[in-house]
Amino acid sequence: LEVGGRVLGVHALLVPLRDPAGKVLPGIRIEDCGEKMGLNGVDNGRIWFEHVRVPRENLLDRFGQVNAQGEYTSAITGDSKRFFTMLGTLVAGRVSVAAAALSAAKSGLTIAVRYGDLRRQFGPAGDKEFRLLDHQAHQRRLLVPLAKTYAMDFALEYLVERYVKRTEEDAREVESLAAGLKAYSTWHTTAVLQEAREACGGQGYLQANRLAALKADTDVFTTFEGDNTVLMQLVAKGLLTGYRQRFEDDRVFAVLKLLADRATAVVDRNPFAARRTDSDHLRDNDYHLRALRFREEELLATVSQRIRKRLSAGVEAFEAFNQVQVHLLELAHAHVERLVLEQFLKGVADVKDPGLKTVLGRLCDLYGLSCLESANGWFQEHGWLEGTKVKAIRKEVTRLCAELRPDAVALVNAFGVPDTCLAAPIGLGHLSP
Amino acid sequence: LEVGGRVLGVHALLVPLRDPAGKVLPGIRIEDCGEKMGLNGVDNGRIWFEHVRVPRENLLDRFGQVNAQGEYTSAITGDSKRFFTMLGTLVAGRVSVAAAALSAAKSGLTIAVRYGDLRRQFGPAGDKEFRLLDHQAHQRRLLVPLAKTYAMDFALEYLVERYVKRTEEDAREVESLAAGLKAYSTWHTTAVLQEAREACGGQGYLQANRLAALKADTDVFTTFEGDNTVLMQLVAKGLLTGYRQRFEDDRVFAVLKLLADRATAVVDRNPFAARRTDSDHLRDNDYHLRALRFREEELLATVSQRIRKRLSAGVEAFEAFNQVQVHLLELAHAHVERLVLEQFLKGVADVKDPGLKTVLGRLCDLYGLSCLESANGWFQEHGWLEGTKVKAIRKEVTRLCAELRPDAVALVNAFGVPDTCLAAPIGLGHLSP
Repeated sequence: LEVGGRVLGVHALLVPLRDPAGKVLPGIRIEDCGEKMGLNGVDNGRIWFEHVRVPRENLLDRFGQVNAQGEYTSAITGDSKRFFTMLGTLVAGRVSVAAAALSAAKSGLTIAVRYGDLRRQFGPAGDKEFRLLDHQAHQRRLLVPLAKTYAMDFALEYLVERYVKRTEEDAREVESLAAGLKAYSTWHTTAVLQEAREACGGQGYLQANRLAALKADTDVFTTFEGDNTVLMQLVAKGLLTGYRQRFEDDRVFAVLKLLADRATAVVDRNPFAARRTDSDHLRDNDYHLRALRFREEELLATVSQRIRKRLSAGVEAFEAFNQVQVHLLELAHAHVERLVLEQFLKGVADVKDPGLKTVLGRLCDLYGLSCLESANGWFQEHGWLEGTKVKAIRKEVTRLCAELRPDAVALVNAFGVPDTCLAAPIGLGHLSP
Repeated sequence: LEVGGRVLGVHALLVPLRDPAGKVLPGIRIEDCGEKMGLNGVDNGRIWFEHVRVPRENLLDRFGQVNAQGEYTSAITGDSKRFFTMLGTLVAGRVSVAAAALSAAKSGLTIAVRYGDLRRQFGPAGDKEFRLLDHQAHQRRLLVPLAKTYAMDFALEYLVERYVKRTEEDAREVESLAAGLKAYSTWHTTAVLQEAREACGGQGYLQANRLAALKADTDVFTTFEGDNTVLMQLVAKGLLTGYRQRFEDDRVFAVLKLLADRATAVVDRNPFAARRTDSDHLRDNDYHLRALRFREEELLATVSQRIRKRLSAGVEAFEAFNQVQVHLLELAHAHVERLVLEQFLKGVADVKDPGLKTVLGRLCDLYGLSCLESANGWFQEHGWLEGTKVKAIRKEVTRLCAELRPDAVALVNAFGVPDTCLAAPIGLGHLSP
């Protein structure tokens, strides 16, 4: 928007595109994006405007108004701050995309788990063949993602609550939360649906069994409403800002806090703890959480240090951040994963029914422990895990999958995807369409 | 085939399905599989035969014949051996699928790398925006897969040669080679195309830019001609058989060989080697190869031990293998990766042109080192790597990507995918279709 020659940044205006007969109005050119991988019901296109006049009333003027005298007013004085406030609208979109992605993951898992419980392949000589889900690798490929899907459910419930109750004070934090969870959730969905497709073999490739459409429709979720890689950098930069402020606000307190955190870390890093391999310890959620917190703090402290070093050596700011981009992405991932585990733990703590609590607790153990397993290289590198413990974690993850196997079908049924929405024959008790 | 009441196993027969007018013949029922995710030009379906008579001449009788007197003869006396000989026909299919997958990966990378070199996004304040490929994370996400794609090229050339020159003696080995490389190549393609799609953002989602079709058509490659997970188990079982034979053939020699291997391993596992972090050492391909060989041997020895332990405790054979299934899959992966690196190294060694040798050598360094990086958890667990070295490897991989960046476009151009086949506007110098 420009008023009286002053550039005021991006503002939204309602512009009529067509006359009542549906003909495009003068000065407007419309082009469709053409066929896409999926979501072809969504009308993506590009629009060009040339000398199109609209009355000032068409300005969406919640954050900035133009009066009859052509004067611009806004409660938000800084142009940049106003721009970011307006961008805040995108947050709702990110919350929705994260949730839509999770729904697709649930459908995909429902199909693959039910089919895996039905379909038999290979078995002991002269005996009945095993169900797919009784093969060790099949349990791992589906039940670890199942645990993560449950974790995401609690995390997104938390996100929606934070979003609904957001205030001006925590708006930035909620924005970062939405960005991080949108990225984590949509990447998860892409991975889950791929795994589900492969786990269903040739049946997974048939359109009738729905995985093809689920994949095609959700593939762009990692891109739209903000590219995941870009969003994760936003998250990391938000953390860096917070980190700097911690020191600026109260240097002494921050240093003490840091020392205390490191002391906790030392407890887990001492040779005894780094080698503990008993099941009780490996299934201790506080232990998982301490590990994820340690990783996040460590990545934050080190990336902050690396950036400072570059800046003081005179490296241009954008270039300095670019030189540690992979590190920033790791930090964001560590941050989101810690958040998700926290919410899963809170969710399990709130459950009253003892049977349900046991199964959910097991899923939560699996999620927490599989986070450690998949980052075991990092944890060893930083002295948090030793070789024998990594081996024990691997065994425990496998064992948890086997323990959850009998409840697998019940756990996907609990997603409550209606048959009419699932609509996949192999997800509804048939071996083929 | 049953002859005179004797069941002789699966044999192939030519059976006419339709009359000259195209009508399905009596006793035959045909059903189409319906629409699939991709490859809809391929006519998949199911056929039922009921009391259909065909003359004995319709038997494809290379490995077993029925004479006019109704007597069965075969040069291969064992039914099981004959069955596996016939299954050998599938090997050609696996070689082809592996190669087709690689071609798709090349097309996907060509599109994504050229687009990444063209498209700009974000940059220093007041300056030109960076090309996508000048962002650190973008280099990693595309150039590490580029190195692997080159590695696969050499490995598949080797596979084709081995396949063409196969004899009865090495048929099993070639079969295993084809199985392993088919799985490794097709999983690589699925991952590369996903990365390419995301790296091209919204443009990658448009059908016009070809990634959607490439993904859809190749997605089933991980399934058909043998499910990848099943094939990798075949590979692992082949290795176990070889391992047992090594001991049976010459126990003393085998033990000495094993001790020698372990001695080499000790050289790299001593604290000095485990901590060496200089670039020369990190780019030493012999070092990469020693690492991959060590991993393969170690996984083979330990999985063999675990199976023996179970069998002697009376666990049923199928169940015993199932209890170590994930370990078997890791072994197969380690085996194939070592093979691929060996072929890449041989390929680079044969290059005469010094400029080409430098660039290919760098790609080979990147492939070898990224194998170590992605398995750094395992290598730390087994004392082959220490934390400081893992950090150094990570830095070196990032540095190699940056060094290869200027040659990235030339390296995808060298795939020689014709423009008419690529057919993606963003892969041919346009920012959008």
